[in-house]
This record gives sequence, structure tokens and C-alpha cells, in this order.
Amino acid sequence: MIMANMTMEEFKKAMEDGRPVIIPVGAVEAHGNHLPLATDTIQPEQIAMEVAERIGAVVAPTVNYGVCKSLKNFPGTISLSFDTMRALMREIIEGFVQHGAKKIMVISGHAGQSHMIALREAAYDVVERHDVRVMVFSDYDIAYMYRGKLVPEDDGHAGTLETSRVLAIMPQWNKKLPGENVPEYPKFEVVREFERYFPNCYRGDPSKASAELGKKINEMIVEHIVDMVRERWRI
Amino acid sequence: MIMANMTMEEFKKAMEDGRPVIIPVGAVEAHGNHLPLATDTIQPEQIAMEVAERIGAVVAPTVNYGVCKSLKNFPGTISLSFDTMRALMREIIEGFVQHGAKKIMVISGHAGQSHMIALREAAYDVVERHDVRVMVFSDYDIAYMYRGKLVPEDDGHAGTLETSRVLAIMPQWNKKLPGENVPEYPKFEVVREFERYFPNCYRGDPSKASAELGKKINEMIVEHIVDMVRERWRI
Amino acid sequence: MIMANMTMEEFKKAMEDGRPVIIPVGAVEAHGNHLPLATDTIQPEQIAMEVAERIGAVVAPTVNYGVCKSLKNFPGTISLSFDTMRALMREIIEGFVQHGAKKIMVISGHAGQSHMIALREAAYDVVERHDVRVMVFSDYDIAYMYRGKLVPEDDGHAGTLETSRVLAIMPQWNKKLPGENVPEYPKFEVVREFERYFPNCYRGDPSKASAELGKKINEMIVEHIVDMVRERWRI
Amino acid sequence: MIMANMTMEEFKKAMEDGRPVIIPVGAVEAHGNHLPLATDTIQPEQIAMEVAERIGAVVAPTVNYGVCKSLKNFPGTISLSFDTMRALMREIIEGFVQHGAKKIMVISGHAGQSHMIALREAAYDVVERHDVRVMVFSDYDIAYMYRGKLVPEDDGHAGTLETSRVLAIMPQWNKKLPGENVPEYPKFEVVREFERYFPNCYRGDPSKASAELGKKINEMIVEHIVDMVRERWRI
Amino acid sequence: MIMANMTMEEFKKAMEDGRPVIIPVGAVEAHGNHLPLATDTIQPEQIAMEVAERIGAVVAPTVNYGVCKSLKNFPGTISLSFDTMRALMREIIEGFVQHGAKKIMVISGHAGQSHMIALREAAYDVVERHDVRVMVFSDYDIAYMYRGKLVPEDDGHAGTLETSRVLAIMPQWNKKLPGENVPEYPKFEVVREFERYFPNCYRGDPSKASAELGKKINEMIVEHIVDMVRERWRI
Amino acid sequence: MIMANMTMEEFKKAMEDGRPVIIPVGAVEAHGNHLPLATDTIQPEQIAMEVAERIGAVVAPTVNYGVCKSLKNFPGTISLSFDTMRALMREIIEGFVQHGAKKIMVISGHAGQSHMIALREAAYDVVERHDVRVMVFSDYDIAYMYRGKLVPEDDGHAGTLETSRVLAIMPQWNKKLPGENVPEYPKFEVVREFERYFPNCYRGDPSKASAELGKKINEMIVEHIVDMVRERWRI
Repeated sequence: MIMANMTMEEFKKAMEDGRPVIIPVGAVEAHGNHLPLATDTIQPEQIAMEVAERIGAVVAPTVNYGVCKSLKNFPGTISLSFDTMRALMREIIEGFVQHGAKKIMVISGHAGQSHMIALREAAYDVVERHDVRVMVFSDYDIAYMYRGKLVPEDDGHAGTLETSRVLAIMPQWNKKLPGENVPEYPKFEVVREFERYFPNCYRGDPSKASAELGKKINEMIVEHIVDMVRERWRI
Repeated sequence: MIMANMTMEEFKKAMEDGRPVIIPVGAVEAHGNHLPLATDTIQPEQIAMEVAERIGAVVAPTVNYGVCKSLKNFPGTISLSFDTMRALMREIIEGFVQHGAKKIMVISGHAGQSHMIALREAAYDVVERHDVRVMVFSDYDIAYMYRGKLVPEDDGHAGTLETSRVLAIMPQWNKKLPGENVPEYPKFEVVREFERYFPNCYRGDPSKASAELGKKINEMIVEHIVDMVRERWRI
Repeated sequence: MIMANMTMEEFKKAMEDGRPVIIPVGAVEAHGNHLPLATDTIQPEQIAMEVAERIGAVVAPTVNYGVCKSLKNFPGTISLSFDTMRALMREIIEGFVQHGAKKIMVISGHAGQSHMIALREAAYDVVERHDVRVMVFSDYDIAYMYRGKLVPEDDGHAGTLETSRVLAIMPQWNKKLPGENVPEYPKFEVVREFERYFPNCYRGDPSKASAELGKKINEMIVEHIVDMVRERWRI
Repeated sequence: MIMANMTMEEFKKAMEDGRPVIIPVGAVEAHGNHLPLATDTIQPEQIAMEVAERIGAVVAPTVNYGVCKSLKNFPGTISLSFDTMRALMREIIEGFVQHGAKKIMVISGHAGQSHMIALREAAYDVVERHDVRVMVFSDYDIAYMYRGKLVPEDDGHAGTLETSRVLAIMPQWNKKLPGENVPEYPKFEVVREFERYFPNCYRGDPSKASAELGKKINEMIVEHIVDMVRERWRI
Repeated sequence: MIMANMTMEEFKKAMEDGRPVIIPVGAVEAHGNHLPLATDTIQPEQIAMEVAERIGAVVAPTVNYGVCKSLKNFPGTISLSFDTMRALMREIIEGFVQHGAKKIMVISGHAGQSHMIALREAAYDVVERHDVRVMVFSDYDIAYMYRGKLVPEDDGHAGTLETSRVLAIMPQWNKKLPGENVPEYPKFEVVREFERYFPNCYRGDPSKASAELGKKINEMIVEHIVDMVRERWRI
Repeated sequence: MIMANMTMEEFKKAMEDGRPVIIPVGAVEAHGNHLPLATDTIQPEQIAMEVAERIGAVVAPTVNYGVCKSLKNFPGTISLSFDTMRALMREIIEGFVQHGAKKIMVISGHAGQSHMIALREAAYDVVERHDVRVMVFSDYDIAYMYRGKLVPEDDGHAGTLETSRVLAIMPQWNKKLPGENVPEYPKFEVVREFERYFPNCYRGDPSKASAELGKKINEMIVEHIVDMVRERWRI
């Protein structure tokens, strides 16, 4: 049920049938020299497709841009402002509500705090005015439950876990994977040039990544979401 | 040169080489019962890819949502506001400028007036503050040059021309194509329920469409753009 | 029925009688060295007065400033931003609606695209929330129907047609009228210094203008509007 | 030197000559049943013209709408919001500054506090960023210096003074002038329906008004401004 | 009834009992070298506490920052913008209304015009949408009724009156009090560097101040407010 | 060095001496029936005072209101919007920067995610345009390091830890302290009526609280901040 390929009457039917809507939110953000700029997009798209298949949801066209201020000086990062992200998301969610959607799930591949709050504030705004259920989360909110288990505790941006997930989704991807790099940055400080503290643009050990691990984690994320949704939304 | 699949250093190189950037802008809009909701997205994406191949440009991730107020009550149309569209586009264009892009082309599949002015105002805002060349147009600004020639003068939304172009891009698409329908609406009037004047959500004669015609028109559009760009940007 | 000269009870009566309201929108914009800066104001004011007389409408005080970005670097052009124009117009239209107006016509002498979309977005905003009919157009939307007929196809800003109309309205105007000038500018491109492509600030052949032609065209515009309104609004 | 009737080169010359610019700001506001809705417009226009003649200033097209919240429920009052008024004025003032104006005077016929602060905030915004002198005042800031002298202390909106000034400017005006009415309203309270406390929409004694008194006061205002400007701006 | 020290159920009870809410609004503004930066905060806080005690009102936490543009270049002045002040106040007032407050009094220690209009516009916005009574004033609107009586007519910012009031509230304050200083500034002019006309940052004669006078004036202000409120709100 | 009590020249001196500025940010939020509405204000004020004393910083007047959407329906919670909080904080921080502050610390007693992101976005905006160091954190970012140690892992809003800290600061506070209550709410869901999942408005076991524990934790927080600042800012 890919919305992009549906006609207006097919979409109308899906809404009348009470199908949930999943909106994948990506980002265009530098992920070291070993991962593509759309890394944060392909992951939630993949998760959204698999979850949708299992619960009979409609997958909306992806929002391809996100709020990525801290890495905005790295080549290829295109960052939206907080306000634009929030307005964009609010109008999209509200659009679905006006067509009758009652259960909406926003899955973001990017998990930056400002980005996530922009998405949540957008959803909140709609929820306050309409009788609709909206979930907003990053697949990394779930993926990072495996930090300290399947990957080290200090794994992070473009690290073992994220590299593995990309390899699982893009088997043809064959860049050289660099070794461990765990940069530190000044806690609580609001910094302009974050790249000074994060020169390689990744955190963790990409060389430890594998498609198998990625596949396993992706599957665990999908199951986690499906279980949660079945219980929460009784579907 | 698909930006989504490039790493940050590959993108950096492309900018240093002075490659143009093409940003496809789509929409999620009802196109009768015979065309998909992403009709306005797949067309500029296709054009962008072909133009990029010929002029060595980078294709940015697509902006999948647009301003579609007049058809917003038809199932499946998700319309952004003017302000959000403008802000979104301004921040994306500005993002590329900050990474060194000097020639940017925004190709929109949707050609609604408010939508196009939102894109142009966004570009204008960037152009006023940076030394960069930006072109903004809809592939329909070019396609409609063939109205009265390859298709009737009164062909329009989801009509012969648009249906043909979709068939050329999605050969597997096999919905029944309806016959002629040329609705009229009150000129100069600002109406709330545009669907009252446009009940079938298309204008023209989809049953006359063919993949061959679509292929021909798509090719003419690509050539038109490539010629224009070569002359204008000397590439 | 000039609102400026009415008292509050006279205005109240006019609204109770269901009279339409006409809001003339002008601009302060350079029109070559042969036409006054208020060229875009005097034309819709004149049209509004004549239409009002024939259909018994109330003419609101003129909005004297508009959005004129492309010519903003020519001496005397004072351009509003899109947002301010839209807000201004929205509040004025809404003001009339709150006093009971049911039929409102916005006639703009300036026909720039951003300007017109700002007016239309303003009207749309009101129409969405109130049960009222609003028409928004430029007298040039009508006047240019005569391009290729009474004046050449490439006549434009401050050309034969516009100069003629001004001469018809201001018989005392006696500036020297320059000859043909048909500048070209780069299609689809969003440019900062439009004056580079438009050095003389007019397009067409003012020397061919005459008060007679202007009078004729003004009369045709008035008749066109009156006919349209009588049919559309049944008055 | 009426800007509306100047060509672009004439305006350019005026700016090069360092001529001041006077921007009259009016309002569309109920003024009892004895004065026209444009009462607050014709007064500053008249003052502006006379001052301009004496100091060689350029008079800009009038801003015909203002912020008139307290009387907005009376028929014919069209009130802008604070934000729109401020933006409108800021863009107009800034437009003149960009064309080289160095001395700008904003004369408002309406003297409501929010309205005046909107104008002042607009001017402040420009003054902070440009080297230009801007004066903002209502002709009533000056006229009311004569309260307790030429007219009673409790004269106010559409009272003896204002009625006299209108009679002086519009000799043909011949509505019946009502007698004394001095309504009181609750100090410091922010009220929604101000008309409850101000049922007749005027304050003072219009029946005492005369064109002679109006002429005298208008002349005193003009002189006051001319003196102030000559001293302040050394012209 | 200090809200800061109340629990949620105590506050709930106070609202159910129909108690008025007093919101003190202060400022952080330079007041010469003889008064503290929070001069405009401690005065309305004191007045609010005393009024509350006499009429059984709840005193809300103080808004400690205000709009102080003219003195913003003096060390220690922290000025909010008009828009932020208005939004802040609107949300606070609306918050109380949503909890059931029916009578709200905003007492501002700072009396700058923009500041006061921001507060009034905020209140107006709430009053238009809710059935609630709101008063907005500065204690200086009342205190200056004593100019020309208890203190000279030209007493002003940080002068005899204000210094006296501070001495009454902060008996331990022991800065040297400077002598008379009555600066003049250009009427009607909107100036960027107000400090050029106001070099000592006070107006009047602080050396004439005394805690006794301050106490007397504070008491008169409190009585004035209590009388007004008892009559107006029948409490 | 309490800014409220400083004169303008004393403040000027402090800035010239390079003293850091600490801005305490509070909130007006329901904290069960056992803690005061200003709970989130008194904690950071106390911490700010103690830190300032040890590092010689200036303490700015407290920002008494914050973003508290989730508990906004409990009596006494007054919640600002995200935008207002951000603007307010941006203008305050920028105000200090304009007076020469080079090191600014924002300590918030409230730790809600939207609230914290509003503060961080505000700081980011200033940091991007000025050469200044800004830290933004909640004292609870530090306090919660002791969860699982001094207090249970599931201690939270108005629980053992927070109640203890309030008791340490307000020894006279003597409300009855309720027993354990650990409500659960639906993860990832954006809910309108959060109180449905949080009926008692606290989380943890207030009856286990003590002033001694609070004092200990407050001291640990102060030491943590002082150590961090000394190392980071070399003071």
C-alpha cells in the first residue's frame, strides 16, 4: 500500500477501511565517507515498508529533508530550520487527518533532538485539535536499545549499528569501512562549529559492521514496532 | 550523480567541480481515478535524471510535497501552505549554496500558480543574498508549449498529455483511461470548493493517451531544458 | 458610492442593501520616464468608479502600495513584501465581510505574479472561513486580451496599451512618449537585478499611444467586468 | 511635488536634491453620523500637502488604512492588525530609504495608541539599520495642544475640533452636526466591545464646529510642523 | 496568596473562589547610578502584594523582563522585542483564564509606551476570545498623577518620585543620590541612540527623594487601585 | 552579584571584569499536592546563587515561566509556547552579549524536552552570530545522574529527589508527603490529555524525601557545575 502509486479512490477506500498511515521522515546528512548522504532516509523507508506490510498500513511519500544543525557544515548536509520542519510535518499530518486517517505513525531515520522535538510539536498541534492517535519516534529510539548488547555502548552516528543497517538495505554498497573513532564533545555547551569536536563525522567502529547484523537489527525494530502497534492500536 | 547515494566527500568533489544541482519538486495530489497520487513527482524526477545525465548535474533528493489547494478536498491530496513551501525551498536552496553550488535548477512537476510563486519567492530570497544562478520552472511550463500541437488546446490536469507522460515512465501502469471531460470554472473567482467545478478531477481526454506520445514529449522537454541550460549556463 | 465620503450609517445601509464592494489596489512603480509612478493606481481606480456606477457598488479607499520586486531598483518603486501585501489585503477583505459585505471585487492595476498571488491567497483565506464571494483580478488580465488585436502581441509594461489608458484618464499628461523597445529576459531564471534586462523600464511602443485608444480599452474593460458580474452575481 | 504624478527620473532628481518625504497615513474609521469614514485620511493629506509646499518636500501616496480596534464594530471601520500596520509602514519607509531619502516624516490622521506605536516601531526598525532621520506623529498630537484653549478640554473623537477641520477641508460637507456628548469608559480596562461605552461614536460637541475654526487650527498645525522641521532638519 | 508558594489544589481552590489574579511585570533597565537595575520590578511587586492582601487576590510570579528599547544601550538594560513581550503576556494571561480566572490585573513597573501597548495588545487578544475582565496599567500611570503636586512636573525616569519609592521598599539602599537633571529630547523623532539625549539616565532630582515620600506615594497608589477595583469588579 | 540589585555602572564593571552570567529559568507547574507551583524556579535559583558565589558570576533576574505542555491541564500550570520561550531566551541572552558578556550559563529547573530544546535553539541562534560561550542545561540533567544511586531509578517529577531538594531550600515547607506512585504512559505517543496517564501529578515516592538528602544533592549539583565550569571556561 504505497500511497505514491495509489489513485485517489484507492486511497479513499484505504482511509474508509481505517488503515493506519506511516510517514517516513529522512534527512540529507553527512555520514562519514563510508555511508551515503541519504542514510537517514533509506532506513525508515525500509522499516515503514516492512511494518506496513505486516499491519496493512499505507506508506506516505517520504519527507526527504530534516533538521541537522550540528553536522550542517559537513559537505552534503542540508538542514531545515526547526520551524520549517515543524510546519511541514504539521501540515502533512493534518492533511491525512482531513482525509480521515485515525492512526498515524511518523518514523524518522534521523534522531537529533531538535529534529525530533519539531516532529513531536507538529504532531501535538494536530492532536490538540483532532481526535486522532499519532506516534512519533525514530527507529534509532528502538535501535539504541541494543547498544551495550549487539553493539558497544559508545556506538553512534554512522557507527557499527548504522553501517550494518545500511549494508543490509543496500547490499551493493561497497565503500571501505573505517575503524574505531569515539570523539568527545563538551556536554551542555551550545556550539557553532560542532565539526571541531567531530572531525570524522562518525562515532563507533564501522569496520565491525555487517549486513547480517543490520538485517537482524532491522528485523528486531520491525517486530518491536509491530508488537507495540498491535497492542496500542488493537490492530 | 544521485546525491542520495553519494558520500560527503563525493558530494564535496561534485561541488568543487562546479556541477549544477537539480532539485525535483513533486506533489501528492489527486489525478482522477486513472493516475497515481505521485503523478507530479515521478515526472520531474524522470526529467531531472535525464537532464542530469546529459549535463553532468547532481540530482538532489526530491521534495515530495507541494501546494495543491484547489484540489485539496479530493482524496489523497496533501497540500502544504504557501509559507511552508517557500520556507522549505528557501532552506534547501540555501543549503546547497552554502556547500558551494553555483547553478541550481528547481523542476516542479506541479504547476499550480501559488505553488510556483512559493518556489520562485524562495529562490528570489536566496538570489538576493548570494551570487548564484537559480532557475525555477515546471516541466509543464515546457510541456504546455505542445498544447494545440500534440494535444488539444484544452488539455489539462491528468489529461492526454499528463497521462501519456505517466504511461511512458510507468509502463506497468494499467488503469482504465476515461474519456473526454472539459470542465469550466468561474474565472477570477476565489473559490473554496473547487471540486464543485471540477468533479472528475481531470481535464482533457485521457483515453487518447499513449506511452509513445509520453515518451516523445518527455524527450522534447529534456532536450528543451538541456539546450536552454547549455546556452544560459555555458555548460 | 465612494466609501471615503460616506458616514457610518450610510455605509451600514449600503451593506444592508447587499451592495458589492470594489477594492482598487494600486502600486507605486516606475513606468519609464513617460508615465507617472502611480500609473498602476489611477487605472483600477478609474475602472472601479465606472463599474461601481453601473452596478451600484461601494468603492473602498484604494490600497496604494503593491508588490513590485522586479522593478524595485528603479527610482520611485516602493515594493511591499509578499507577506505584508497578503496580510494587508486579508485584513481589509475580512473587515468588509465583518460589516456584512457578501460580494467583493479586488481590482489591481499592477499585474505582477507575486502581487496577484498575494491578493488571491488573501482572498482565499477569507473565503475558506466565511460565506462570501470574492473576485480578484487585474484590469490587465482583461486588457491583455486585446494584445495581438488593438496593440501588438509584444506590448507590455508602460507600452502602447498602458500609456493610452493613462492618457485617457489624465488628459493633462504631456510627457514625451518614446519609441519601440522590446527587451528580452532569461525565462525561468530568478534574477536579482532585473533592470539589467529591462534598462528603459518599459516594453512596447509608447509613441503609438493615444487617449482615444485608451478610452476605448478602458470602456471595454468596464463592460467586460460589468457583464461578468451581472451574470456571475446576478445583479 | 506629488509623488503619484512624478516620473521615475523626476523622483530620482528629488531624492538627489535631498528633498524630505512626507508619508500621510489615514484610516477608514467611523466618525459618528456627521463625518465621513475617511476623516482621518483627508486631514493628514491636507496637512502634508501644505507642509510640502512650504518646505519643498515630496508627498508619498497615502496609506489609507490604519489600526482602529476600539471602534472596529461601528459600520465602516476597517482595522488593520498591529503587525500588518507595522510591516506595511516599515517596508514603505525602507523603500524610500533605499532610493536615497534622508529625511522622512510620517503624519497620521488617526492617533490611536496601538496605531501610533505600530508606526513608531516600524520607523525604529529602519532607523536602527540606516542613517536616516524619521519623524512620526499624528496631526492630533499637535491639534490637541489646543484643547482647553480653542476647544474644551474634553473634546475628542469627531468632536468640535475634528469636525471643524473636516469642514475646512471639505466645504461641501453638509451633514447635520449633533450636540454635546462626552462618554466615559473604564480606565485601564481592556474591553472587547468598546462601543458599549461609546454609543454615539463621537466625543465633544460637533454642533460648535465651524470651517473657520478648522482653517485656523489646520494653519496652526502646518506652521507648527514647518517651524519644527526647519529647526530640526535645518531646511 | 503568593502563587509561587501554593500547591495545585490550593490554587484550584482560589480560582473556584473567584479570586482575582495580579500579574506583576517588571523590567531590567538602567536607572542611573543611584538605583538598581530591577527598579521597575520591585515597585509593582510591592504594590501587587499590598493590593492582593487587601482584596484577597492571588499574586502570580513576576515577569522580570520588559521592552526597554530607548535605554537599551545603557549597561544592564535587557530589552525584549515588542512581539516577544506581547506573546509572553498573552500566553500567561491565557493560561490563567484556562484555569478559571475571571478577573486579571497586570501591573507594570515599567511604563514605556511600546511596552505598555505590547501588554495591552496581549490582553486584548485574550479578551476578544474569552469572557474575562483584564486591567492593564503601570503603577506610574497612577504615580504620575502626583506630578506637579508631590513632585515637580518635570520629574521622570529615576527622578524624585521613583527614587523615593525605591527607598521606601529597600530601606537598606544607600547609594549617593545625584542632583537635578532635566534632559530634553527631540519630540516626534524616532532615534537610534536615545542616550545621546539622556546621558545621565535619569530625569528630575533624585537628591530630593526620601523613603517617607516613597511610602506615602506607594500607599496612595495601593489605595487608588483598591478603590478602583472594588468599584469596578464589585469585590 | 545579584544583577537585580546592581546599578548600571556596577554591572558595567562586572562585564568588563569578564564575569560569567548565570540565567536561572524556572516554571510555574503543578507538582502534586505536596510541592509548590514554583518548585522548578526555586531550585535553579538556589543553584545559581551558590555557583555564582563560588565562581564570581552575576546572577540575572529569573525567567519565571517555562514550556510545560504535558501538565498544562493541572491547576496552576502556566505553559508558554515553544516559540515564545525560544524568543524570550534568545533576546535575553543576546541582551547580555550586547553588554559584553562572554560566558553565559542557562540553568533550568524544568527539564521537559520541548522546554530544553527551546532554550538550546535560542542559545544556538546567538552563538551562531556572536563569539560567546553558552551552556544550557537543567539542574535535573545533573540530579538524575543520581537516579539508581541516591534515589530509585524510577524516581521522577515531584518524587523523592525533587521533594528532598525543595525541603532543603524551603525548610518551613510542611505539606504531607504522599507515598509511592509510578504511573506509566504510552511511549512514543503524542497525547493531548497527559493527565489521564499521570493522575497524581508526581512520580516516585515523596514520603522518602528529606531535607538532608536534598541538601546533599544540591551540593553535589553545585560542585558538579563548578568543576565543569572551572575546567571548561578556565575560571
